[in-house]
Amino acid sequence: MATPSTPAPRSAPNPDRRSERARQAILDAALELCGEQLYAGLTMEGIAKRAGVGKQTIYRWWPSKAAILLEAIEERGRSTLDFPDTGNLEADLRTQMTQVAQAFASPLFAAYSKGLIAAAQSDPDIAKAVVDSIIKPRVDLCIERLTKAQAAGELRQDIDLADLVELLYAPLYYRLLLHTRPVTQSQVDTILNLALTGATK
Amino acid sequence: MATPSTPAPRSAPNPDRRSERARQAILDAALELCGEQLYAGLTMEGIAKRAGVGKQTIYRWWPSKAAILLEAIEERGRSTLDFPDTGNLEADLRTQMTQVAQAFASPLFAAYSKGLIAAAQSDPDIAKAVVDSIIKPRVDLCIERLTKAQAAGELRQDIDLADLVELLYAPLYYRLLLHTRPVTQSQVDTILNLALTGATK
Repeated sequence: MATPSTPAPRSAPNPDRRSERARQAILDAALELCGEQLYAGLTMEGIAKRAGVGKQTIYRWWPSKAAILLEAIEERGRSTLDFPDTGNLEADLRTQMTQVAQAFASPLFAAYSKGLIAAAQSDPDIAKAVVDSIIKPRVDLCIERLTKAQAAGELRQDIDLADLVELLYAPLYYRLLLHTRPVTQSQVDTILNLALTGATK
Repeated sequence: MATPSTPAPRSAPNPDRRSERARQAILDAALELCGEQLYAGLTMEGIAKRAGVGKQTIYRWWPSKAAILLEAIEERGRSTLDFPDTGNLEADLRTQMTQVAQAFASPLFAAYSKGLIAAAQSDPDIAKAVVDSIIKPRVDLCIERLTKAQAAGELRQDIDLADLVELLYAPLYYRLLLHTRPVTQSQVDTILNLALTGATK
């Protein structure tokens, strides 16, 4: 990136900026191709061709197609890292879970279920990378918000907050991965109603 | 099967019984191999070899390896079709969900997540078959039991029972497919506590 003290002259191409453009093109290509074809058919060569870069460029930055998809989902899924704190837990969960539901419903995220999570079933390294890079950061943010709510008396004192996170988000994954019904906004409303109030009240 | 009125003489091999033995050997072989290797490496030829039958025998009965696994999981997962009705909803859910948790924790069922559900992410026909043959029959039985509980006043009148089934079982699938924590009996207890009583009570 150019700094104010040493501006790059317009005529000289900036290699960092060019690299960043190539990196973004590769992430886009991987997501697009993963949506269009079987994950088994996705190759480094195909991604390079679609991105308009040489295969060596890709291998210099990533060891595997799963690594590219992981970075793509991490970057393009940043919206689901916003965890608001308005002081109203239910409203904040609704906002955050709606972002997740929208991501799950987007064709761009087919690469998440079809590529990464499917591959994770046979490959413990991919499974670990998905948990460490995608799931854990979001679970931690949610637990942080739930901890404040528990301290404020909005939640029962005797519940484990990691278990509550699981109960809230698991139904979204259930529909994404089992293809029973589409993930929707109304599902978010239903989950919150049931999980917060309970089925027996 | 031999009937009391026409017992098959011991010396004459019964072709139905022989077929049934071959069928069971093929289902076992498919489950074993799926646990041992990548799903992509599972072949009809490998299953035939392990089962000690000819490849043609397999193709005569099943069109694909997914079809074999589907039948194997359906048959070997029969225990999860028992839905007790003792008059106490929470106890009955605990019994049934414990059966599911035990199945998910069994290496035999690796074929369910690693084979069928992973393949379903790229193949809508497999996804539909999993829902129709495995998920829907169990959801229907659970809804039947929940309907009685709702009529008996054990559940809120204003909730959708299909949504409640999702909330109860989704966390088991979440751990099975995302590999965050092992599926355990204590998870069943936690789910029931949270989902029935609610997190805010």
